[in-house]
Amino acid sequence: MRNLTLLTDLYQLTMLNGYFEKNIHEDMVIFDMFFRKNACNGGYTIVCGIEQFVEYINNIHFSEDDLAYLKSLNLFSDKFLTFLKDFKFTGDIYAVEEGTIMFPNEPILTVKAPLYQAQLIETALLTIINFQSLIATKASRVCFAAQGDPVFEFGLRRAQGPDAGTYGSRAAVIGGCSATANVLAGKMFDIPVVGTQAHSWIQKFDTEIEAFKAYADIYPDKCLLLVDTYNVLNSGLPNAIKVFKDLREKGHKPLGIRLDSGDLKYLSNQCKDALDKEGFTDVSITASNDLDEYTIASLKADGASVNSWGVGTKLITSADSPSLGGVYKLAASFKNGEFEPKIKLSEDPEKISNPGYKKVFRIYNEENKAEADLIMLHNESIDESKPLTIFHPTYTWKTKSFENYTVKELLKPLFINGECKYKHKSVMEIREYVSNELNSLWEEYRRLSNPQTYKVDLSRDLWYLKTKMIDSKKFI
Amino acid sequence: MRNLTLLTDLYQLTMLNGYFEKNIHEDMVIFDMFFRKNACNGGYTIVCGIEQFVEYINNIHFSEDDLAYLKSLNLFSDKFLTFLKDFKFTGDIYAVEEGTIMFPNEPILTVKAPLYQAQLIETALLTIINFQSLIATKASRVCFAAQGDPVFEFGLRRAQGPDAGTYGSRAAVIGGCSATANVLAGKMFDIPVVGTQAHSWIQKFDTEIEAFKAYADIYPDKCLLLVDTYNVLNSGLPNAIKVFKDLREKGHKPLGIRLDSGDLKYLSNQCKDALDKEGFTDVSITASNDLDEYTIASLKADGASVNSWGVGTKLITSADSPSLGGVYKLAASFKNGEFEPKIKLSEDPEKISNPGYKKVFRIYNEENKAEADLIMLHNESIDESKPLTIFHPTYTWKTKSFENYTVKELLKPLFINGECKYKHKSVMEIREYVSNELNSLWEEYRRLSNPQTYKVDLSRDLWYLKTKMIDSKKFI
Repeated sequence: MRNLTLLTDLYQLTMLNGYFEKNIHEDMVIFDMFFRKNACNGGYTIVCGIEQFVEYINNIHFSEDDLAYLKSLNLFSDKFLTFLKDFKFTGDIYAVEEGTIMFPNEPILTVKAPLYQAQLIETALLTIINFQSLIATKASRVCFAAQGDPVFEFGLRRAQGPDAGTYGSRAAVIGGCSATANVLAGKMFDIPVVGTQAHSWIQKFDTEIEAFKAYADIYPDKCLLLVDTYNVLNSGLPNAIKVFKDLREKGHKPLGIRLDSGDLKYLSNQCKDALDKEGFTDVSITASNDLDEYTIASLKADGASVNSWGVGTKLITSADSPSLGGVYKLAASFKNGEFEPKIKLSEDPEKISNPGYKKVFRIYNEENKAEADLIMLHNESIDESKPLTIFHPTYTWKTKSFENYTVKELLKPLFINGECKYKHKSVMEIREYVSNELNSLWEEYRRLSNPQTYKVDLSRDLWYLKTKMIDSKKFI
Repeated sequence: MRNLTLLTDLYQLTMLNGYFEKNIHEDMVIFDMFFRKNACNGGYTIVCGIEQFVEYINNIHFSEDDLAYLKSLNLFSDKFLTFLKDFKFTGDIYAVEEGTIMFPNEPILTVKAPLYQAQLIETALLTIINFQSLIATKASRVCFAAQGDPVFEFGLRRAQGPDAGTYGSRAAVIGGCSATANVLAGKMFDIPVVGTQAHSWIQKFDTEIEAFKAYADIYPDKCLLLVDTYNVLNSGLPNAIKVFKDLREKGHKPLGIRLDSGDLKYLSNQCKDALDKEGFTDVSITASNDLDEYTIASLKADGASVNSWGVGTKLITSADSPSLGGVYKLAASFKNGEFEPKIKLSEDPEKISNPGYKKVFRIYNEENKAEADLIMLHNESIDESKPLTIFHPTYTWKTKSFENYTVKELLKPLFINGECKYKHKSVMEIREYVSNELNSLWEEYRRLSNPQTYKVDLSRDLWYLKTKMIDSKKFI
């Protein structure tokens, strides 16, 4: 486990030192992590990376090395550096379960801790959760477009570095991919790995057919052949069929072919016809080459005969939307033991934060579909035996009432008084959880373009608190 | 140092196992790494990440753990796994110096090694170099737009994970940034770190002026104030000026202000006027908030009074172009000791690779400006005492002649017979080298949009070899 304690912005440390000097560093505060827009311009976001965040918190410690480095910056008092030596996270953290689907402006994680602790962890928290949530969401969109066909994560070589490729693989599988080509990710996270041969294998032999035969010879039961090195229809496909026939005669079942260039619709249909004619009706036709959810959706709509997809660059970087803008905002502060809600104002009304110590409920209908989320103050609760009416936080006359419903509280203890409450789940378990989460969502929220907006409302008490606070700061 | 040996695509290992079974794994081969399009849709690419690639090569070893994992996949023979146990890179690698500016379709790194070694390292090589080269190039574009103003890398929280943020910082400084906010990057790479306070510092105090005073009190000589928490012109700016006057009276020199929202042109000009009026004519006005090279260029052109820039998300992810498509292609193979050039054909002529064992020369004019690059076969050389004529590889009638010129050979030994020849350079030394590289480039290649295309030509011998090979494969 690497030491990521210094994985923070310098201003966190200059502020910590300042709080320490002013002796307010032990003040309890509440920070919320939330995002303002869904990942990938979509209708929802899968929260991912909780396990790596937990590892980070459990491992925070300033080594002698770290402290010597900080001293060399000539910014911090020796007293402060000595104080950091004993740094240990002692606060509470509540977070949604890894794989939970969340929406803009609701807390996905809440930290209640002494100011200096809550502040230090901001940057690492955001980096870890923003990235993995982005890729998990992207993967779920790609898998949605693939309509149940297996999707393989092939992006390592174009990822934003080794770890982006590896943790990105983890997130991609959580989001729905069936496997990855990244062997390290396979080992680290116990996720399925796939891969056969590259163009260089084909080139290494004098002819394509020799290369195919050699591969079939070594992997007779795992024979998937890359057919586009020279020419798919005149060379790759007929050569593959020859080899497949040999395999069949010897009692083996060929796996299929892969196309990595050209018009994937035309070529896959031609290949499917030729393979069908020879009786290879159930082999896999895998396509790769610059795919994303939009290209896959369009190939599907056009009737391409691809039944398995290798997705690289555009998945592992979420190329058309390569960041999730999760933020971490002060929601409350205890001053001399007294609770003070805090708000971040902005000229842009969408950027005004929700004040106070909060919790989040998800409301489900009788069919277990999610209907709306409700953010409440920490001391509020919902009596499910009574009807529930919620209202839009801006257009308050828009209301919605529920009679037969259930609710689920989304933020669960991750750390209490510094003690870790997180229970490890395997990546494949989290993937299963995500699949259930997605099933609880109406399809209009999953639409690739222009999805419907899911309702995230505020309780009456929270709405009043927020409105009052905005009002009181109006003329600053 | 983490063990990245398994940071590879599974197909590399299935191929290795196949080569081993066919007993051709020891055949010497030559692979080139190159890219087909410049990073960031620009006119050049800064090659970055060589040091991390060297660390990777020096550290390759299959641990017991790794081998046990590979065995569990049921893909590899025990004999092969035993063979991997002693894996050590024993080949030659030639690469450009880290920070060198390169162009499409010329080798930036060439590997000459036994097939199984050359193949294994492909994925890690591409991941490491693609990402850092992308960010270094992006940073150089942002700095170009900033016209000499310092640019700070602020993107960690939106980076594609902790390491993308950290190695991205390294690359950003190599590309021209003055400093980073990422403390871990500061420590690991000995690069300057910057940071003062966030909105949460301001919010933690009852009033903005108290927050400013507290900061000035602790950092009287490093006082840069964030002025947009409530309202820049009615609150932040006048409060900052009050605090700056106090500091001046006490003999300190305030550093400046930071704007993180709003119309940066209007606000910076208003701030500049007000600060000038009070005699604070040389303080820094730093702007941040969703900047990239295009926004900075436009603010500069509009006359914004910003003189220092904090650039986050769009730099650390290279948001509008988040990957560099570096590839690694077989260029030659030795069969029973006999040399065979190899070529990767494609229906897209731009995707046809350059065959053979090659070297690359850069041609400079008398003012030391780079005029063109020339790719030659390994046994060719240039006699600088004689005039040199080069020609366009597709439009061969387009020629260019040089009389007074010098040449530099770009690919230098990184490993010879497995022995590391790399000499560590500090990030700040590489940054200086990049700055010289950029100065050797005419400005038309640096233009942010629609840059001129730099000439990368082939020697006559290489051109003949390539043409002959294409011709012989025409009818496959």
